[in-house]
Amino acid sequence: MDEVKAILFDTFGSLVDWRSSVIAELAAWGQARGLERDWTGFADAWRGAYKPSMDRVRTGEQGWTILDDLHRQSLQTLLDAHGITGLDAAELEHLTRIWHRLRPWPDSVAGLTRLKRRFIIAPLSNGNLALLVNLSKFAGLPFDTVFGSDMPRRYKPDPEVYLGACAILGLRPGQVMMAAAHNYDLAAARALGLKTGFFVRPTEYGPGQTKDIKAESNWDIIAQDVEDLARQLGV
Amino acid sequence: MDEVKAILFDTFGSLVDWRSSVIAELAAWGQARGLERDWTGFADAWRGAYKPSMDRVRTGEQGWTILDDLHRQSLQTLLDAHGITGLDAAELEHLTRIWHRLRPWPDSVAGLTRLKRRFIIAPLSNGNLALLVNLSKFAGLPFDTVFGSDMPRRYKPDPEVYLGACAILGLRPGQVMMAAAHNYDLAAARALGLKTGFFVRPTEYGPGQTKDIKAESNWDIIAQDVEDLARQLGV
Repeated sequence: MDEVKAILFDTFGSLVDWRSSVIAELAAWGQARGLERDWTGFADAWRGAYKPSMDRVRTGEQGWTILDDLHRQSLQTLLDAHGITGLDAAELEHLTRIWHRLRPWPDSVAGLTRLKRRFIIAPLSNGNLALLVNLSKFAGLPFDTVFGSDMPRRYKPDPEVYLGACAILGLRPGQVMMAAAHNYDLAAARALGLKTGFFVRPTEYGPGQTKDIKAESNWDIIAQDVEDLARQLGV
Repeated sequence: MDEVKAILFDTFGSLVDWRSSVIAELAAWGQARGLERDWTGFADAWRGAYKPSMDRVRTGEQGWTILDDLHRQSLQTLLDAHGITGLDAAELEHLTRIWHRLRPWPDSVAGLTRLKRRFIIAPLSNGNLALLVNLSKFAGLPFDTVFGSDMPRRYKPDPEVYLGACAILGLRPGQVMMAAAHNYDLAAARALGLKTGFFVRPTEYGPGQTKDIKAESNWDIIAQDVEDLARQLGV
Protein backbone atom coordinates (compact mmCIF):
# COMPACT_ATOMS: atom_id res chain seq x y z
CA MET A 1 0.00 0.00 0.00
CA ASP A 2 3.00 2.30 0.42
CA GLU A 3 2.98 3.34 -3.23
CA VAL A 4 -0.63 4.61 -3.16
CA LYS A 5 -0.72 8.39 -3.70
CA ALA A 6 -4.35 8.98 -4.57
CA ILE A 7 -7.71 7.48 -3.59
CA LEU A 8 -10.65 7.82 -5.96
CA PHE A 9 -14.10 7.42 -4.46
CA ASP A 10 -17.33 6.23 -5.88
CA THR A 11 -19.87 8.73 -4.63
CA PHE A 12 -23.58 7.80 -4.94
CA GLY A 13 -24.21 5.17 -2.29
CA SER A 14 -20.57 4.95 -1.23
CA LEU A 15 -20.17 8.43 0.30
CA VAL A 16 -23.70 9.82 0.24
CA ASP A 17 -27.01 8.25 1.18
CA TRP A 18 -28.90 9.01 -2.01
CA ARG A 19 -32.00 7.00 -1.06
CA SER A 20 -33.06 8.67 2.18
CA SER A 21 -32.05 12.07 0.76
CA VAL A 22 -34.13 11.70 -2.41
CA ILE A 23 -37.13 10.34 -0.51
CA ALA A 24 -36.99 13.21 1.99
CA GLU A 25 -36.74 15.86 -0.74
CA LEU A 26 -39.57 14.35 -2.81
CA ALA A 27 -41.79 14.02 0.26
CA ALA A 28 -41.17 17.62 1.31
CA TRP A 29 -41.85 18.86 -2.20
CA GLY A 30 -44.98 16.75 -2.48
CA GLN A 31 -46.28 18.01 0.84
CA ALA A 32 -45.70 21.63 -0.20
CA ARG A 33 -47.72 20.97 -3.38
CA GLY A 34 -50.37 18.88 -1.68
CA LEU A 35 -49.39 15.76 -3.65
CA GLU A 36 -49.60 12.33 -2.04
CA ARG A 37 -47.61 9.65 -3.77
CA ASP A 38 -45.39 6.70 -2.90
CA TRP A 39 -42.21 8.78 -2.73
CA THR A 40 -40.11 5.80 -1.62
CA GLY A 41 -41.19 3.89 -4.69
CA PHE A 42 -40.63 7.01 -6.81
CA ALA A 43 -37.06 7.36 -5.49
CA ASP A 44 -36.27 3.68 -6.04
CA ALA A 45 -37.67 3.79 -9.56
CA TRP A 46 -35.66 6.95 -10.31
CA ARG A 47 -32.47 5.25 -9.19
CA GLY A 48 -33.59 2.13 -11.01
CA ALA A 49 -33.51 4.08 -14.27
CA TYR A 50 -29.88 5.10 -13.61
CA LYS A 51 -28.00 2.10 -14.94
CA PRO A 52 -30.25 1.48 -17.99
CA SER A 53 -29.98 5.16 -18.95
CA MET A 54 -26.17 5.09 -18.77
CA ASP A 55 -26.09 1.79 -20.62
CA ARG A 56 -27.90 3.42 -23.54
CA VAL A 57 -25.03 5.93 -23.70
CA ARG A 58 -22.33 3.30 -23.10
CA THR A 59 -23.60 1.15 -25.97
CA GLY A 60 -23.92 4.11 -28.32
CA GLU A 61 -27.72 3.83 -28.58
CA GLN A 62 -27.80 7.42 -27.26
CA GLY A 63 -25.10 10.04 -27.85
CA TRP A 64 -23.08 11.48 -24.99
CA THR A 65 -25.47 12.81 -22.35
CA ILE A 66 -24.44 14.08 -18.90
CA LEU A 67 -26.00 12.52 -15.82
CA ASP A 68 -28.02 15.65 -14.99
CA ASP A 69 -29.78 15.25 -18.33
CA LEU A 70 -30.30 11.50 -17.86
CA HIS A 71 -31.79 12.27 -14.43
CA ARG A 72 -34.11 14.87 -15.99
CA GLN A 73 -35.26 12.44 -18.68
CA SER A 74 -36.04 9.65 -16.22
CA LEU A 75 -37.71 12.11 -13.85
CA GLN A 76 -40.01 13.27 -16.62
CA THR A 77 -41.02 9.67 -17.37
CA LEU A 78 -41.73 9.05 -13.68
CA LEU A 79 -43.70 12.26 -13.24
CA ASP A 80 -45.87 11.27 -16.21
CA ALA A 81 -46.36 7.77 -14.76
CA HIS A 82 -47.42 9.29 -11.43
CA GLY A 83 -49.83 11.71 -13.09
CA ILE A 84 -47.85 14.78 -12.04
CA THR A 85 -48.09 17.47 -14.70
CA GLY A 86 -47.80 21.22 -15.19
CA LEU A 87 -44.35 21.72 -13.64
CA ASP A 88 -42.51 24.78 -14.89
CA ALA A 89 -38.84 24.67 -15.91
CA ALA A 90 -37.57 25.97 -12.56
CA GLU A 91 -39.49 23.31 -10.62
CA LEU A 92 -38.28 20.55 -12.92
CA GLU A 93 -34.72 21.81 -12.43
CA HIS A 94 -35.18 21.93 -8.66
CA LEU A 95 -36.26 18.28 -8.66
CA THR A 96 -33.55 17.16 -11.10
CA ARG A 97 -31.00 18.76 -8.82
CA ILE A 98 -32.07 16.73 -5.81
CA TRP A 99 -29.03 14.68 -6.85
CA HIS A 100 -26.85 17.71 -6.07
CA ARG A 101 -28.18 17.73 -2.49
CA LEU A 102 -27.52 14.31 -1.00
CA ARG A 103 -26.50 13.79 2.62
CA PRO A 104 -23.22 12.07 3.48
CA TRP A 105 -23.10 8.88 5.49
CA PRO A 106 -22.09 9.65 9.11
CA ASP A 107 -18.45 8.55 8.64
CA SER A 108 -17.79 10.06 5.17
CA VAL A 109 -16.62 13.57 6.05
CA ALA A 110 -14.47 12.49 9.00
CA GLY A 111 -12.90 9.64 7.03
CA LEU A 112 -12.14 11.80 3.99
CA THR A 113 -10.69 14.52 6.20
CA ARG A 114 -8.25 12.01 7.67
CA LEU A 115 -7.33 10.52 4.30
CA LYS A 116 -6.80 13.98 2.76
CA ARG A 117 -3.81 14.52 5.06
CA ARG A 118 -1.79 11.86 3.30
CA PHE A 119 -3.51 11.15 -0.01
CA ILE A 120 -4.96 13.03 -2.95
CA ILE A 121 -8.69 12.35 -2.66
CA ALA A 122 -11.22 12.82 -5.44
CA PRO A 123 -14.55 11.40 -6.54
CA LEU A 124 -14.47 9.16 -9.61
CA SER A 125 -18.14 9.14 -10.33
CA ASN A 126 -20.67 8.89 -13.11
CA GLY A 127 -21.95 12.27 -12.05
CA ASN A 128 -21.02 15.25 -14.21
CA LEU A 129 -18.52 17.66 -12.74
CA ALA A 130 -21.03 20.39 -11.86
CA LEU A 131 -23.22 17.88 -10.04
CA LEU A 132 -20.22 16.55 -8.10
CA VAL A 133 -18.91 20.00 -7.18
CA ASN A 134 -22.33 21.09 -5.92
CA LEU A 135 -22.81 17.79 -4.08
CA SER A 136 -19.39 17.99 -2.47
CA LYS A 137 -20.09 21.50 -1.21
CA PHE A 138 -23.55 20.52 0.03
CA ALA A 139 -22.31 17.42 1.85
CA GLY A 140 -19.00 18.92 2.99
CA LEU A 141 -16.87 16.32 1.20
CA PRO A 142 -13.35 17.85 1.29
CA PHE A 143 -12.06 16.63 -2.07
CA ASP A 144 -8.80 17.89 -3.58
CA THR A 145 -10.22 17.78 -7.08
CA VAL A 146 -13.16 16.23 -8.91
CA PHE A 147 -13.32 13.65 -11.70
CA GLY A 148 -16.69 13.58 -13.38
CA SER A 149 -17.85 11.51 -16.31
CA ASP A 150 -18.03 14.51 -18.62
CA MET A 151 -14.29 14.89 -19.07
CA PRO A 152 -13.76 11.41 -20.55
CA ARG A 153 -17.38 11.49 -21.81
CA ARG A 154 -17.65 7.90 -20.62
CA TYR A 155 -19.46 6.11 -17.84
CA LYS A 156 -18.00 3.56 -15.44
CA PRO A 157 -17.12 0.77 -15.78
CA ASP A 158 -15.58 1.82 -19.12
CA PRO A 159 -11.79 1.53 -18.72
CA GLU A 160 -11.13 5.06 -20.03
CA VAL A 161 -12.71 6.53 -16.89
CA TYR A 162 -10.25 4.85 -14.50
CA LEU A 163 -7.17 5.10 -16.72
CA GLY A 164 -7.90 8.68 -17.70
CA ALA A 165 -7.95 9.78 -14.06
CA CYS A 166 -4.66 7.98 -13.34
CA ALA A 167 -3.02 9.55 -16.40
CA ILE A 168 -4.10 13.07 -15.58
CA LEU A 169 -2.86 12.62 -12.01
CA GLY A 170 0.50 11.58 -13.49
CA LEU A 171 0.27 8.29 -11.58
CA ARG A 172 0.55 4.64 -12.55
CA PRO A 173 -2.64 2.63 -11.86
CA GLY A 174 -0.83 0.86 -9.01
CA GLN A 175 -0.39 4.22 -7.27
CA VAL A 176 -4.14 4.83 -7.25
CA MET A 177 -6.81 3.16 -5.11
CA MET A 178 -10.44 2.93 -6.16
CA ALA A 179 -12.65 2.97 -3.07
CA ALA A 180 -16.32 2.01 -3.28
CA ALA A 181 -19.19 0.14 -1.68
CA HIS A 182 -19.84 -1.59 -5.02
CA ASN A 183 -18.05 -4.74 -6.06
CA TYR A 184 -18.51 -4.15 -9.82
CA ASP A 185 -16.64 -0.85 -9.61
CA LEU A 186 -13.68 -2.42 -7.82
CA ALA A 187 -13.59 -5.36 -10.24
CA ALA A 188 -13.28 -2.95 -13.16
CA ALA A 189 -10.55 -0.97 -11.37
CA ARG A 190 -8.56 -4.05 -10.35
CA ALA A 191 -8.59 -5.39 -13.91
CA LEU A 192 -6.74 -2.22 -14.93
CA GLY A 193 -4.15 -2.44 -12.15
CA LEU A 194 -5.61 -0.04 -9.59
CA LYS A 195 -5.60 -0.87 -5.90
CA THR A 196 -9.03 -1.52 -4.39
CA GLY A 197 -10.73 -0.55 -1.13
CA PHE A 198 -14.17 -1.84 -0.21
CA PHE A 199 -16.53 -0.71 2.51
CA VAL A 200 -20.08 -1.84 2.95
CA ARG A 201 -23.25 0.28 2.84
CA PRO A 202 -25.80 -2.31 3.90
CA THR A 203 -28.81 0.04 3.68
CA GLU A 204 -27.96 1.94 0.51
CA TYR A 205 -30.94 0.34 -1.22
CA GLY A 206 -33.06 0.29 1.92
CA PRO A 207 -33.91 -2.55 4.30
CA GLY A 208 -33.67 -5.98 2.75
CA GLN A 209 -30.76 -5.03 0.49
CA THR A 210 -29.34 -8.09 -1.26
CA LYS A 211 -26.64 -6.50 -3.47
CA ASP A 212 -23.18 -5.50 -2.25
CA ILE A 213 -23.79 -6.60 1.30
CA LYS A 214 -20.26 -7.97 1.48
CA ALA A 215 -16.92 -7.96 -0.32
CA GLU A 216 -17.15 -10.44 -3.19
CA SER A 217 -13.41 -10.65 -3.78
CA ASN A 218 -10.20 -10.27 -1.80
CA TRP A 219 -10.02 -6.50 -2.30
CA ASP A 220 -6.76 -4.94 -1.08
CA ILE A 221 -8.59 -3.36 1.83
CA ILE A 222 -11.98 -4.43 3.18
CA ALA A 223 -13.27 -1.89 5.68
CA GLN A 224 -16.39 -1.12 7.69
CA ASP A 225 -16.64 2.45 6.45
CA VAL A 226 -14.45 5.37 5.31
CA GLU A 227 -13.07 6.03 8.78
CA ASP A 228 -12.07 2.38 9.04
CA LEU A 229 -10.45 2.65 5.59
CA ALA A 230 -8.38 5.57 6.91
CA ARG A 231 -7.47 3.58 10.03
CA GLN A 232 -6.36 0.60 7.96
CA LEU A 233 -4.25 2.90 5.80
CA GLY A 234 -2.59 4.24 8.93
CA VAL A 235 -3.92 7.79 8.94
CA MET B 1 -22.38 40.52 -9.45
CA ASP B 2 -25.41 38.64 -8.07
CA GLU B 3 -25.36 36.12 -10.90
CA VAL B 4 -21.76 34.99 -10.26
CA LYS B 5 -21.68 31.37 -9.09
CA ALA B 6 -18.02 30.44 -9.58
CA ILE B 7 -14.68 32.22 -9.36
CA LEU B 8 -11.72 30.88 -11.32
CA PHE B 9 -8.28 31.90 -10.14
CA ASP B 10 -5.04 32.36 -11.92
CA THR B 11 -2.51 30.65 -9.68
CA PHE B 12 1.21 31.36 -10.35
CA GLY B 13 1.83 34.88 -9.12
CA SER B 14 -1.82 35.55 -8.29
CA LEU B 15 -2.23 33.11 -5.38
CA VAL B 16 1.30 31.83 -4.80
CA ASP B 17 4.61 33.66 -4.63
CA TRP B 18 6.52 31.57 -7.16
CA ARG B 19 9.62 33.79 -7.18
CA SER B 20 10.65 33.73 -3.52
CA SER B 21 9.65 30.04 -3.31
CA VAL B 22 11.74 28.99 -6.31
CA ILE B 23 14.75 31.06 -5.20
CA ALA B 24 14.59 29.56 -1.69
CA GLU B 25 14.35 25.99 -2.97
CA LEU B 26 17.17 26.43 -5.48
CA ALA B 27 19.40 28.08 -2.87
CA ALA B 28 18.77 25.32 -0.32
CA TRP B 29 19.44 22.66 -2.94
CA GLY B 30 22.61 24.42 -4.11
CA GLN B 31 23.89 24.76 -0.56
CA ALA B 32 23.32 21.06 0.09
CA ARG B 33 25.33 20.25 -3.04
CA GLY B 34 27.99 22.88 -2.43
CA LEU B 35 27.03 24.80 -5.56
CA GLU B 36 27.24 28.59 -5.64
CA ARG B 37 25.25 30.23 -8.39
CA ASP B 38 23.02 33.28 -8.90
CA TRP B 39 19.85 31.49 -7.85
CA THR B 40 17.74 34.63 -8.16
CA GLY B 41 18.83 35.00 -11.77
CA PHE B 42 18.26 31.28 -12.30
CA ALA B 43 14.70 31.54 -10.96
CA ASP B 44 13.91 34.60 -13.08
CA ALA B 45 15.32 32.94 -16.20
CA TRP B 46 13.32 29.78 -15.47
CA ARG B 47 10.13 31.81 -15.24
CA GLY B 48 11.27 33.80 -18.26
CA ALA B 49 11.18 30.61 -20.32
CA TYR B 50 7.55 29.98 -19.29
CA LYS B 51 5.68 32.07 -21.82
CA PRO B 52 7.94 31.30 -24.82
CA SER B 53 7.67 27.57 -24.06
CA MET B 54 3.86 27.71 -23.95
CA ASP B 55 3.78 29.86 -27.06
CA ARG B 56 5.62 27.09 -28.95
CA VAL B 57 2.74 24.79 -28.00
CA ARG B 58 0.05 27.40 -28.64
CA THR B 59 1.32 28.07 -32.15
CA GLY B 60 1.66 24.38 -32.97
CA GLU B 61 5.45 24.51 -33.30
CA GLN B 62 5.54 21.87 -30.52
CA GLY B 63 2.83 19.25 -29.92
CA TRP B 64 0.79 19.25 -26.72
CA THR B 65 3.17 19.21 -23.75
CA ILE B 66 2.12 19.58 -20.10
CA LEU B 67 3.66 22.34 -18.02
CA ASP B 68 5.69 19.90 -15.89
CA ASP B 69 7.47 18.79 -19.05
CA LEU B 70 7.98 22.36 -20.28
CA HIS B 71 9.45 23.19 -16.85
CA ARG B 72 11.77 20.17 -17.09
CA GLN B 73 12.94 21.16 -20.58
CA SER B 74 13.71 24.74 -19.61
CA LEU B 75 15.36 23.58 -16.38
CA GLN B 76 17.69 21.33 -18.35
CA THR B 77 18.70 24.21 -20.60
CA LEU B 78 19.41 26.41 -17.57
CA LEU B 79 21.37 23.72 -15.74
CA ASP B 80 23.55 23.31 -18.82
CA ALA B 81 24.04 27.07 -19.07
CA HIS B 82 25.09 27.18 -15.40
CA GLY B 83 27.50 24.28 -15.82
CA ILE B 84 25.53 22.00 -13.53
CA THR B 85 25.76 18.41 -14.73
CA GLY B 86 25.47 14.84 -13.51
CA LEU B 87 22.00 15.06 -11.93
CA ASP B 88 20.17 11.76 -11.71
CA ALA B 89 16.52 11.42 -12.70
CA ALA B 90 15.23 11.72 -9.12
CA GLU B 91 17.12 14.96 -8.54
CA LEU B 92 15.93 16.42 -11.83
CA GLU B 93 12.38 15.51 -10.86
CA HIS B 94 12.81 17.06 -7.40
CA LEU B 95 13.88 20.33 -9.01
CA THR B 96 11.20 20.26 -11.71
CA ARG B 97 8.62 19.83 -8.98
CA ILE B 98 9.69 22.96 -7.16
CA TRP B 99 6.66 24.37 -9.01
CA HIS B 100 4.46 21.98 -6.98
CA ARG B 101 5.77 23.54 -3.76
CA LEU B 102 5.11 27.28 -3.92
CA ARG B 103 4.10 29.32 -0.90
CA PRO B 104 0.81 31.23 -0.89
CA TRP B 105 0.69 35.00 -0.50
CA PRO B 106 -0.36 35.89 3.06
CA ASP B 107 -4.00 36.65 2.14
CA SER B 108 -4.64 33.78 -0.32
CA VAL B 109 -5.81 31.01 2.02
CA ALA B 110 -7.97 33.28 4.19
CA GLY B 111 -9.51 34.96 1.14
CA LEU B 112 -10.28 31.70 -0.64
CA THR B 113 -11.74 30.22 2.54
CA ARG B 114 -14.18 33.12 2.75
CA LEU B 115 -15.09 32.98 -0.94
CA LYS B 116 -15.62 29.20 -0.80
CA ARG B 117 -18.63 29.72 1.49
CA ARG B 118 -20.64 31.33 -1.27
CA PHE B 119 -18.89 30.51 -4.56
CA ILE B 120 -17.44 27.53 -6.35
CA ILE B 121 -13.71 28.26 -6.38
CA ALA B 122 -11.17 26.62 -8.64
CA PRO B 123 -7.84 27.42 -10.24
CA LEU B 124 -7.89 28.08 -13.98
CA SER B 125 -4.21 27.78 -14.62
CA ASN B 126 -1.68 26.79 -17.23
CA GLY B 127 -0.39 24.21 -14.77
CA ASN B 128 -1.32 20.58 -15.40
CA LEU B 129 -3.84 19.06 -13.03
CA ALA B 130 -1.33 17.01 -11.03
CA LEU B 131 0.85 20.07 -10.48
CA LEU B 132 -2.16 22.12 -9.35
CA VAL B 133 -3.48 19.43 -7.01
CA ASN B 134 -0.07 19.01 -5.37
CA LEU B 135 0.42 22.76 -5.18
CA SER B 136 -3.02 23.30 -3.66
CA LYS B 137 -2.34 20.70 -0.98
CA PHE B 138 1.14 22.13 -0.28
CA ALA B 139 -0.11 25.71 -0.03
CA GLY B 140 -3.43 24.87 1.64
CA LEU B 141 -5.56 26.41 -1.11
CA PRO B 142 -9.07 25.08 -0.37
CA PHE B 143 -10.35 24.69 -3.94
CA ASP B 144 -13.60 22.90 -4.75
CA THR B 145 -12.17 21.45 -7.94
CA VAL B 146 -9.22 22.04 -10.25
CA PHE B 147 -9.04 23.12 -13.89
CA GLY B 148 -5.65 22.44 -15.42
CA SER B 149 -4.48 23.02 -18.95
CA ASP B 150 -4.28 19.30 -19.71
CA MET B 151 -8.03 18.76 -19.95
CA PRO B 152 -8.55 21.25 -22.81
CA ARG B 153 -4.93 20.62 -23.89
CA ARG B 154 -4.67 24.36 -24.39
CA TYR B 155 -2.87 27.20 -22.69
CA LYS B 156 -4.33 30.54 -21.67
CA PRO B 157 -5.19 32.89 -23.21
CA ASP B 158 -6.72 30.47 -25.75
CA PRO B 159 -10.53 30.91 -25.53
CA GLU B 160 -11.17 27.15 -25.14
CA VAL B 161 -9.61 27.24 -21.68
CA TYR B 162 -12.08 29.78 -20.30
CA LEU B 163 -15.16 28.59 -22.19
CA GLY B 164 -14.42 24.92 -21.48
CA ALA B 165 -14.38 25.56 -17.74
CA CYS B 166 -17.68 27.48 -17.90
CA ALA B 167 -19.31 24.73 -19.97
CA ILE B 168 -18.24 21.93 -17.66
CA LEU B 169 -19.49 23.92 -14.68
CA GLY B 170 -22.84 24.19 -16.47
CA LEU B 171 -22.63 27.98 -16.22
CA ARG B 172 -22.89 30.82 -18.69
CA PRO B 173 -19.71 32.94 -18.94
CA GLY B 174 -21.51 35.79 -17.17
CA GLN B 175 -21.98 33.53 -14.14
CA VAL B 176 -18.23 33.00 -13.82
CA MET B 177 -15.56 35.43 -12.63
CA MET B 178 -11.93 35.19 -13.66
CA ALA B 179 -9.73 36.51 -10.85
CA ALA B 180 -6.06 37.28 -11.43
CA ALA B 181 -3.18 39.66 -10.82
CA HIS B 182 -2.53 39.75 -14.57
CA ASN B 183 -4.31 42.12 -16.91
CA TYR B 184 -3.84 39.94 -20.03
CA ASP B 185 -5.72 37.07 -18.38
CA LEU B 186 -8.68 39.27 -17.48
CA ALA B 187 -8.76 40.83 -20.95
CA ALA B 188 -9.06 37.37 -22.51
CA ALA B 189 -11.79 36.38 -20.03
CA ARG B 190 -13.78 39.60 -20.50
CA ALA B 191 -13.73 39.24 -24.29
CA LEU B 192 -15.59 35.94 -23.80
CA GLY B 193 -18.19 37.37 -21.43
CA LEU B 194 -16.75 36.34 -18.06
CA LYS B 195 -16.76 38.71 -15.10
CA THR B 196 -13.35 39.95 -14.02
CA GLY B 197 -11.66 40.51 -10.66
CA PHE B 198 -8.22 42.09 -10.39
CA PHE B 199 -5.87 42.28 -7.44
CA VAL B 200 -2.32 43.48 -7.52
CA ARG B 201 0.84 41.54 -6.67
CA PRO B 202 3.40 44.33 -6.83
CA THR B 203 6.41 42.13 -5.99
CA GLU B 204 5.56 39.02 -8.02
CA TYR B 205 8.56 39.71 -10.26
CA GLY B 206 10.66 41.14 -7.45
CA PRO B 207 11.51 44.73 -6.56
CA GLY B 208 11.28 47.12 -9.47
CA GLN B 209 8.39 45.28 -11.10
CA THR B 210 6.96 47.24 -14.01
CA LYS B 211 4.29 44.85 -15.31
CA ASP B 212 0.79 44.48 -13.79
CA ILE B 213 1.40 47.04 -11.08
CA LYS B 214 -2.12 48.32 -11.56
CA ALA B 215 -5.46 47.54 -13.18
CA GLU B 216 -5.21 48.50 -16.83
CA SER B 217 -8.93 48.43 -17.47
CA ASN B 218 -12.17 48.95 -15.55
CA TRP B 219 -12.36 45.36 -14.34
CA ASP B 220 -15.62 44.49 -12.58
CA ILE B 221 -13.80 44.35 -9.26
CA ILE B 222 -10.43 45.90 -8.50
CA ALA B 223 -9.14 44.72 -5.13
CA GLN B 224 -6.04 44.92 -2.97
CA ASP B 225 -5.79 41.17 -2.51
CA VAL B 226 -7.97 38.05 -2.25
CA GLU B 227 -9.37 38.98 1.15
CA ASP B 228 -10.37 42.37 -0.23
CA LEU B 229 -11.96 40.61 -3.22
CA ALA B 230 -14.04 38.57 -0.76
CA ARG B 231 -14.96 41.72 1.15
CA GLN B 232 -16.06 43.50 -2.02
CA LEU B 233 -18.17 40.47 -2.96
CA GLY B 234 -19.85 40.67 0.43
CA VAL B 235 -18.52 37.48 2.04
